[in-house]
Amino acid sequence: MEIEVKFRVNFDEIKKKIEALGAHFSHFEEQEDVYFKVPRPKLLRVRAIHNLTEYYITYKEIRDERNEEFYEIEFKIENFQKAVEMFRGLGYEVEAVIKKKRWVYKLNDVTFELNRVEKAGDFLDIEVIAEDPEEAKRKIWEVAKKLGLKEEDVEPRLYIELINE
Amino acid sequence: MEIEVKFRVNFDEIKKKIEALGAHFSHFEEQEDVYFKVPRPKLLRVRAIHNLTEYYITYKEIRDERNEEFYEIEFKIENFQKAVEMFRGLGYEVEAVIKKKRWVYKLNDVTFELNRVEKAGDFLDIEVIAEDPEEAKRKIWEVAKKLGLKEEDVEPRLYIELINE
Repeated sequence: MEIEVKFRVNFDEIKKKIEALGAHFSHFEEQEDVYFKVPRPKLLRVRAIHNLTEYYITYKEIRDERNEEFYEIEFKIENFQKAVEMFRGLGYEVEAVIKKKRWVYKLNDVTFELNRVEKAGDFLDIEVIAEDPEEAKRKIWEVAKKLGLKEEDVEPRLYIELINE
Repeated sequence: MEIEVKFRVNFDEIKKKIEALGAHFSHFEEQEDVYFKVPRPKLLRVRAIHNLTEYYITYKEIRDERNEEFYEIEFKIENFQKAVEMFRGLGYEVEAVIKKKRWVYKLNDVTFELNRVEKAGDFLDIEVIAEDPEEAKRKIWEVAKKLGLKEEDVEPRLYIELINE
């Protein structure tokens, strides 16, 4: 299971704090996500990481009220545009297109995704892959507190909801 | 557009004739196709070519009564099982699983797919990619006749229909 908590952040400030924490910079991504309309709690998207010329189909099922627990199936694909056309052919409508710049940092089994999201702002997703959601959230909050993040900084809405508001 | 005509054949006999025609052997495939239930004229499948460890998602729209003209979107994917699980997660039922061995030959812009299909028999698909379906069919029938194939050898049903009968 993928467990992640999203925080609204000040980009420059949090970047310095993540680096000061000892997390190492993994890589940078320029993402374009095409989300298709599927009934919640499901999510369906085709992602392009343009600067790495990598493309993915991702299917998720949200497992909680706060959009923190996800069952996820993701696999790499050869062609972004063809995947988008295939889903349109099957009858799916595009719900939103989200463009973001992402700086990825890692510290042990915790992944920090610092996102600059067009039309939505700056966010930090702290993510852990784990069997036990409670254990994962404990780990996430341990580092979140070290970064000075509080419960009131949590953004429980999905990017797709933030974009479409 | 993908134009193809499917013939019911005697495997050994037609293999010799294809080779005698001067077509060159391209490669061999062990295919496993998972077809999902979608309303016709659409077709949706995930294909594994096990011996080449290649996997594809294919979406087609049948454009004629004889199942010879197809609008096709196909792209390579990294993982067969995850794609199958994704479509199941989205709510698609598996309509059929088709296993076949395929010998591919080429002669100029004509592709010969000689198929040994489990539970259905032996077939030759003669395929041309072209803008103009009539021009493509003329080309197909030109070589088909040289192979001794006749109108009565045509199998207009899809593999998925042959398997499910």
